Amino acid sequence: MNIRTDLALENLEIAGEILPEGVKKESHKKENLTITKVEVTSDSGANILGKPIGTYITIEMDSLKGFSDNFEGETEVVAEQINQLLPKEGLVLVIGLGNEDITPDAIGPQVVSGLLATRHLVNGFAQEYGLGSLRPVAAVAPGVLGQTGMETAEIVHSLCRQIKPAAVVAVDALASRSVERLGTTVQIADTGISPGSGVQNQRAELSRQSLGIPVIAVGVPTVVDMTTIAYDLLGEGYQSEKVSDRGRTMMVTPREIDKIIKQAAKTVAAGLNRALQPELSMEEIVGLTA
Amino acid sequence: MNIRTDLALENLEIAGEILPEGVKKESHKKENLTITKVEVTSDSGANILGKPIGTYITIEMDSLKGFSDNFEGETEVVAEQINQLLPKEGLVLVIGLGNEDITPDAIGPQVVSGLLATRHLVNGFAQEYGLGSLRPVAAVAPGVLGQTGMETAEIVHSLCRQIKPAAVVAVDALASRSVERLGTTVQIADTGISPGSGVQNQRAELSRQSLGIPVIAVGVPTVVDMTTIAYDLLGEGYQSEKVSDRGRTMMVTPREIDKIIKQAAKTVAAGLNRALQPELSMEEIVGLTA
Amino acid sequence: MNIRTDLALENLEIAGEILPEGVKKESHKKENLTITKVEVTSDSGANILGKPIGTYITIEMDSLKGFSDNFEGETEVVAEQINQLLPKEGLVLVIGLGNEDITPDAIGPQVVSGLLATRHLVNGFAQEYGLGSLRPVAAVAPGVLGQTGMETAEIVHSLCRQIKPAAVVAVDALASRSVERLGTTVQIADTGISPGSGVQNQRAELSRQSLGIPVIAVGVPTVVDMTTIAYDLLGEGYQSEKVSDRGRTMMVTPREIDKIIKQAAKTVAAGLNRALQPELSMEEIVGLTA
Amino acid sequence: MNIRTDLALENLEIAGEILPEGVKKESHKKENLTITKVEVTSDSGANILGKPIGTYITIEMDSLKGFSDNFEGETEVVAEQINQLLPKEGLVLVIGLGNEDITPDAIGPQVVSGLLATRHLVNGFAQEYGLGSLRPVAAVAPGVLGQTGMETAEIVHSLCRQIKPAAVVAVDALASRSVERLGTTVQIADTGISPGSGVQNQRAELSRQSLGIPVIAVGVPTVVDMTTIAYDLLGEGYQSEKVSDRGRTMMVTPREIDKIIKQAAKTVAAGLNRALQPELSMEEIVGLTA
Repeated sequence: MNIRTDLALENLEIAGEILPEGVKKESHKKENLTITKVEVTSDSGANILGKPIGTYITIEMDSLKGFSDNFEGETEVVAEQINQLLPKEGLVLVIGLGNEDITPDAIGPQVVSGLLATRHLVNGFAQEYGLGSLRPVAAVAPGVLGQTGMETAEIVHSLCRQIKPAAVVAVDALASRSVERLGTTVQIADTGISPGSGVQNQRAELSRQSLGIPVIAVGVPTVVDMTTIAYDLLGEGYQSEKVSDRGRTMMVTPREIDKIIKQAAKTVAAGLNRALQPELSMEEIVGLTA
Repeated sequence: MNIRTDLALENLEIAGEILPEGVKKESHKKENLTITKVEVTSDSGANILGKPIGTYITIEMDSLKGFSDNFEGETEVVAEQINQLLPKEGLVLVIGLGNEDITPDAIGPQVVSGLLATRHLVNGFAQEYGLGSLRPVAAVAPGVLGQTGMETAEIVHSLCRQIKPAAVVAVDALASRSVERLGTTVQIADTGISPGSGVQNQRAELSRQSLGIPVIAVGVPTVVDMTTIAYDLLGEGYQSEKVSDRGRTMMVTPREIDKIIKQAAKTVAAGLNRALQPELSMEEIVGLTA
Repeated sequence: MNIRTDLALENLEIAGEILPEGVKKESHKKENLTITKVEVTSDSGANILGKPIGTYITIEMDSLKGFSDNFEGETEVVAEQINQLLPKEGLVLVIGLGNEDITPDAIGPQVVSGLLATRHLVNGFAQEYGLGSLRPVAAVAPGVLGQTGMETAEIVHSLCRQIKPAAVVAVDALASRSVERLGTTVQIADTGISPGSGVQNQRAELSRQSLGIPVIAVGVPTVVDMTTIAYDLLGEGYQSEKVSDRGRTMMVTPREIDKIIKQAAKTVAAGLNRALQPELSMEEIVGLTA
Repeated sequence: MNIRTDLALENLEIAGEILPEGVKKESHKKENLTITKVEVTSDSGANILGKPIGTYITIEMDSLKGFSDNFEGETEVVAEQINQLLPKEGLVLVIGLGNEDITPDAIGPQVVSGLLATRHLVNGFAQEYGLGSLRPVAAVAPGVLGQTGMETAEIVHSLCRQIKPAAVVAVDALASRSVERLGTTVQIADTGISPGSGVQNQRAELSRQSLGIPVIAVGVPTVVDMTTIAYDLLGEGYQSEKVSDRGRTMMVTPREIDKIIKQAAKTVAAGLNRALQPELSMEEIVGLTA
């Protein structure tokens, strides 16, 4: 059966015990978080995983469930891992994908609203207030096709032509195979957003190929499709012909999704701010963002 | 296995083909809605259904899914059915149960915010503006135990002692067995709210026994527990020992829950306003509520 | 003294009794609304009014105060007047200016969220659902410089290069001289947005000159500066040297601004939808927007 | 003329240079905040000030303007001053007055949503988690008369009969004479809420006389009436007969009111939490409130 997931880590689990050819995997623990790097290095690996060639970093934590007792530590780990894939300098354009009016899809917009945009401050302001060297950042959550009549990709392409960023960071809600991972995992990949991924069914590609610059995708799983839940709960007990049509297509999310999204957005936004503005303290970032 | 549902109609389905002794059931269609009245008339019926003796009216519609093409018609049916159980006159206290910050639990608070409170208008204002005879209505959404430190039942008891209503209407989010029914069904019962029902796990009783006046419960299913989803999807394929512990307890809701709740609250609030203020036009109600 | 207003009508009042050379003015009533067209036809007129050459239509109504008893009528008038200035066909890009988190500045974003975007529907969808000929519309509320690090004008320029609209409609909150006009007036102009207008102090120009296509500005006054209040209240009693520095700069808004903005956004969005989709009924528009 | 203010400090300024008989005043600075205690000790003092006999503590700070660089310090000062008037032990009922849908009136509801309710935790939970001795706190924001059909005073009276608190804390938005003080001042009084005070025009009394227990009022000025603005700006230049009728009654608030309310609510909620739970750390309070 076709299992719906946007996490390379889960695709690898589904592929089975033995690591496929053209795929590397390594894990380590830090701050009680499990950090796993999956590298897809060949077309055969890409075919087996159903994921483009590239690097997929997964951070598994608990804090996203609604409250964290280690916010600083998790923020540092997210920042560190984003820095692994992000160019060291130049303007960064952060795009919050998704619809802010659909709670499980609102993580992109909520991250952008917690982000420190600095592109307009880098010259005058920063010196004036002795903020050291600010990295220029632009950020926007343009909304989804149904709201704007424009593909997010069209909007991003036109903004890139206008402001010429060195890299794009695209923040999005993802689908997971496992309910255990909803709101507890962050995936950071250098492959951008490929069509059909994310919670929206169709989405034009945002990638190095299409934009000509690095596109870092930062995603948090917030939904599961019901067929997957049944499979995940029942393993071989599962008989797909029994699944109702609505069940096949219906995406579900935990009852506590509002808190999950709020906490996840806070963690990802803080991690991005730390990664983008290493010379600012948390306090300075909060002060400038507020 | 134990199937989690707050709908008498679903308890009856689970009980099997033959109608149990002490339970009556009749259905009819109106405005393309299916209206089913289940009456539990004896203790044996109550035991089989796991529901107190009383009347449970279920309205099955589509409109709650996020947009209605028959809003007026559905509103009339909801009003009609509420009037079946509501005393014809006297002050009505409407309580919005649930936590407005948890989307699938917010239907009670959202209905209250669309409700026309008139207790303070009935004397001076109504005559002055020639609004005919307003029925006195009070409404409050006090929040949940974790927010207030008080059981909703304590708050309702104290308000009833203070304002002495003729009846209480308690609006709440429910759990359903079937994903097909999430946001597409309204249950109206004269049995009030019994402990453990509703989305909150524990809730003190709100009933004629405890308050000494009729307590009408108006509920819309917004969540399903995952074990139930698996059962609902797979029937006999289901093997409960395979279900993970988190799966057993986790409640899920559709990805589109924000729109579902908004539309359901609009329909239920309009139905309640129509039932409570038969002499006002929709326009007058909207004008006074705005 | 310098009186802060974005309404051509108020600039004209300040200029005095006699109509300046290079300025035309005519008024008529419809649906109990006063519709005034001010045309600035020469540089001398432009200098006296402090407004660029062009047409400024003002609709004075009551509905925006928080509740309307003539919503349909006002919507029609707004649609009619927008059609006076809008090209008859071709793609329209609607921009919601302002910060959705600052209530008096949120009218642009709120109008956009009530707008029917159709650019992605015009081909397949419209025929399929027999919706007659939809006019292509794109809409976005990108946020303000402090949130995005990009001038709204930069964003609009880049989107125009990408999607090549026939016209831009820019919706914005305005400053008024008179508290009587807050939330009760709509100004529609063919001059676009000029620097320093709107509630934001600095804003790059959005105009036919800068974009090469018609730019229709639709604005609702939502703030007054305190010096202006004092002047407006006291006429010659006013002595500017007495005004505190904070008073000079502080912008204020009515206590009921949330309701005012909500109602004004509803009226303007409905008027724009009517003007842009003359072949759709209100019901079809609501259904497609929901 | 009649100057509208709910701040005893401003009434005293208006009364003139010399301290009236029956009124004491002392000020000191701490954490760069000015703390002023006004005591009204006799009926003659009460008449001159137009305030009931009692103690009025005013804290003047900057943080409420939208961002604080001394949040901890201000929180401590607010906690300290509330403790001056609050009984040392027993259940406290915190009431958030005002309408959460009207931004300048939402401070009461926003403070309650940031408050740690513990009445339901004091026995089982606290021991279990070794939280030391929690003080029992209940909190509710019932909404205003127009929403509920019940006077806030009726609701508070009935809750007091039910849960028998040792004291009530009532948090409310206030009117100020001076725009300089909007969102920059907290007034803490032991006189409760008297009719006609607060932003709502009419409000039944909440006081030791009416409830039989101490009632601490915590208020933040968020609105000014326009006549007062004119007077405040113009002093003797003011001629009241020139003020328009709408001007007389219209209450205004700063354009940035959303941020002002958010920051003020955060400061007051943290101060109340500190005052009520001296044995919990900020982190424990946040963790339990989240």
